[in-house]
Amino acid sequence: MNPSSVITAKWNHVADSNSVTKFIDVTLRGCAQVMFQNNPLTGLIFFIAIFIAAFAEGNPAAAFGCVLGTVVATFTGLFSRDRTSWLSGLYGYNGCLVGVALPTFLAATPQLWGCIVIGSVVSVIATVSIADVLKTWKVAALTAPFVLTTWVILLASYAFSGLPTSSLPAPALPHSFTDAAAEGLFHARGVMAVFNGISEVYLFSSVTAGVLFVIGLAVASRWAAIFAVGGSILALITAALLGANTTSIETGLYAFSAVLTAIALGSTFNKPSWRVLSYTFIGVIFTVLVQGAMNTLLVPVGIPTLTMPFVLASWLFLVPNKDIMPSHRRGQ
Amino acid sequence: MNPSSVITAKWNHVADSNSVTKFIDVTLRGCAQVMFQNNPLTGLIFFIAIFIAAFAEGNPAAAFGCVLGTVVATFTGLFSRDRTSWLSGLYGYNGCLVGVALPTFLAATPQLWGCIVIGSVVSVIATVSIADVLKTWKVAALTAPFVLTTWVILLASYAFSGLPTSSLPAPALPHSFTDAAAEGLFHARGVMAVFNGISEVYLFSSVTAGVLFVIGLAVASRWAAIFAVGGSILALITAALLGANTTSIETGLYAFSAVLTAIALGSTFNKPSWRVLSYTFIGVIFTVLVQGAMNTLLVPVGIPTLTMPFVLASWLFLVPNKDIMPSHRRGQ
Amino acid sequence: MNPSSVITAKWNHVADSNSVTKFIDVTLRGCAQVMFQNNPLTGLIFFIAIFIAAFAEGNPAAAFGCVLGTVVATFTGLFSRDRTSWLSGLYGYNGCLVGVALPTFLAATPQLWGCIVIGSVVSVIATVSIADVLKTWKVAALTAPFVLTTWVILLASYAFSGLPTSSLPAPALPHSFTDAAAEGLFHARGVMAVFNGISEVYLFSSVTAGVLFVIGLAVASRWAAIFAVGGSILALITAALLGANTTSIETGLYAFSAVLTAIALGSTFNKPSWRVLSYTFIGVIFTVLVQGAMNTLLVPVGIPTLTMPFVLASWLFLVPNKDIMPSHRRGQ
Repeated sequence: MNPSSVITAKWNHVADSNSVTKFIDVTLRGCAQVMFQNNPLTGLIFFIAIFIAAFAEGNPAAAFGCVLGTVVATFTGLFSRDRTSWLSGLYGYNGCLVGVALPTFLAATPQLWGCIVIGSVVSVIATVSIADVLKTWKVAALTAPFVLTTWVILLASYAFSGLPTSSLPAPALPHSFTDAAAEGLFHARGVMAVFNGISEVYLFSSVTAGVLFVIGLAVASRWAAIFAVGGSILALITAALLGANTTSIETGLYAFSAVLTAIALGSTFNKPSWRVLSYTFIGVIFTVLVQGAMNTLLVPVGIPTLTMPFVLASWLFLVPNKDIMPSHRRGQ
Repeated sequence: MNPSSVITAKWNHVADSNSVTKFIDVTLRGCAQVMFQNNPLTGLIFFIAIFIAAFAEGNPAAAFGCVLGTVVATFTGLFSRDRTSWLSGLYGYNGCLVGVALPTFLAATPQLWGCIVIGSVVSVIATVSIADVLKTWKVAALTAPFVLTTWVILLASYAFSGLPTSSLPAPALPHSFTDAAAEGLFHARGVMAVFNGISEVYLFSSVTAGVLFVIGLAVASRWAAIFAVGGSILALITAALLGANTTSIETGLYAFSAVLTAIALGSTFNKPSWRVLSYTFIGVIFTVLVQGAMNTLLVPVGIPTLTMPFVLASWLFLVPNKDIMPSHRRGQ
Repeated sequence: MNPSSVITAKWNHVADSNSVTKFIDVTLRGCAQVMFQNNPLTGLIFFIAIFIAAFAEGNPAAAFGCVLGTVVATFTGLFSRDRTSWLSGLYGYNGCLVGVALPTFLAATPQLWGCIVIGSVVSVIATVSIADVLKTWKVAALTAPFVLTTWVILLASYAFSGLPTSSLPAPALPHSFTDAAAEGLFHARGVMAVFNGISEVYLFSSVTAGVLFVIGLAVASRWAAIFAVGGSILALITAALLGANTTSIETGLYAFSAVLTAIALGSTFNKPSWRVLSYTFIGVIFTVLVQGAMNTLLVPVGIPTLTMPFVLASWLFLVPNKDIMPSHRRGQ
């Protein structure tokens, strides 16, 4: 029995003892479910990484928003009939991302905090709604509830003076990127880019946070950690070969969706095998192309892709192999 | 037995007497179904409101287009096998809206009248098609057939010299709205805005029409009238707190989708209760955010949102509670 | 027994004799399935037309890409369990179009050839995925896998310096087209436009290729050839009456989606009858409106509509009449 198993067993005992610790347990699992892990220790490590990265970037509102969003969404999930999903943190992860994303792009006005609360509540309704629609094809909602809810609020921010932007990209017409690229990638910055890519799942560009996320994953699943790192590396190489903007590659912007695709296709919804590995390989490369495509598509409306490239590529690749899907996939 | 019940009973007798009066009866119900009412008197009051508002705005083509669209769609619906839906006016309401919307944004050329006819026919095919897709999750088509058909023709108008625009917004890049706002709302103009918001369901900004629509609703359902007014008030307050453009608020542009969401979630697809009331409350607030989001999203392509914010928000909120849906919802 | 039947019978004997000729047979059928035909001779005539048109336009990469895409997609389809669909060429036609479309809009860099391979592989995964989703309503995937895969790569080309454009339209804001139009259509150029419209299904504007496509169709199905020509004529007339750009009409840009809608609704998924003919008539007119709408919609992001107007209009028109759908429709 390794140390993390011992800690987990002890914590489970404490968590079951009363409703406050149970709620904390489920909230931590909600944070871990962003990367598909049902493990409170993973969630705790993730929250620590988020606080380190948010304060390092001078934006503590992102960390507090993240906690607020996870708590509100977890509380809202109590109204659902599906207790199993609630206990696994499956109603919390979208609110977790809503809470970290909104303060990343919008200024911290009172209306913003209101929108984090409303957005987290709606993320739970959207989770039930999208999961219900997608169960027809036995596919999970993934982070679609987060992306759709956050897109609505970010787009709406252009119309409302109470929601001023802090760092949304200005709407523009797309133009071709033609610079030469990428020789620096195979130096030290390339290694940093691998971890930035993992960290960008939570919208931070932080090597420290990236390393902590990998540790948090490894606590719950070695395969998840391996696929996260492997997916990030493959995404960097693909983006470099296609001639993407070097700065975007280094900050991890071509990797974060690919990291999630790699974990999802490689370890969460399929058991690792050579066949699954080839399928995941193609899925990760395609996710990088979808990332480039959505970057272009959203330029005229001035919002970021968030994790939609992961969602779309993974849906496309998950429908055909639903016959071999483990039963827990239905719940997410 | 109140006076409107007496009139309704007498009319039903006349309507059943021959196929011409039956067709008129179903056409009137089609107009009433825009706000979910299966009642010919409501439809008659709505048509009167439409004529008053269209002539007041100097655009009689919108009123005649509305009648033409409802008649063509009702006639097309005769080819469907679902006689129950036809009798309830459920094949007419999308054509009704196509007919009022096209002359609101395009000049009255011969091609426009052709497009109203084609659009009304296609709205029925779209109603059958979308209803068939959505019945998998027991959700109604709502006004999606109207919005999609009208969007196609409005977007196409940019490509065809025979369909010149009269009042489409010029395509542009979105920019943030930063003006201070909204102190005037809690004066007399606020009361007018409540009724403008209801009137904008049919694309008019008219207090008289708004009052008539409320009366028409009350004839068929007190709860529908109450939720319409309540939804409009809540939408105004939400938009004002978020800092929306005061002129847009006063003309009802943030309220019309919210009015439909309020009637749909509060009285049509659920029986009123405290739980339903809370759910509707969140749904209306979210509809205002979706309205702001879609305003931004459509700026680059120069078309209005129509009632799509209502459709998207209501679909999201209706899927999770389909278990408590009354059977008549399947038909719409 | 007519000559083409004799050739077909002999070829079938050769094709069954070994796995190389079988693969060639299925690859040819893949090319023919772009226009819904399961016939290797049709595919051969189509490939000849494609080579003639590609060399005439000085872009041989489009012809070689077309062969590469069809071969890669057919090979990928071998991994599917659905042998019947594979034998009919239903895994090849989307790769065929990916292979012809990418070199039409992008310069022939090494990365482009890599994207044709990846795109063709993904087109098969997308075919399985979309067909699986749509079989809920017994509707075929049509060319949606091609359009979505190609859109992703074309949009992504703006972000990657290794994928420079050769002829993508520059992103812009839509503006109304107001020129007078169309008197020249009813002269010789009108006849050429009919065949250009059919040729544009494969993205060429070539009368010779258009005539060959009609011959290839007639070899497999007289009705398909008749509906292709009839659909093209009706689309030209509709576009001219609406006042479209004359050059666009003459190069066939308003007809190619309508041609596919006409074949699909008129002969592939329904048996020809007066009722089907009226329905197809409305479907073709609506496809022209959707073509105009999507032209506007995609202006800000600088990509072509490809055959999406056909896909959307046909889906809308196919869902309601799925009860009379022949069983082979499920496979596509």
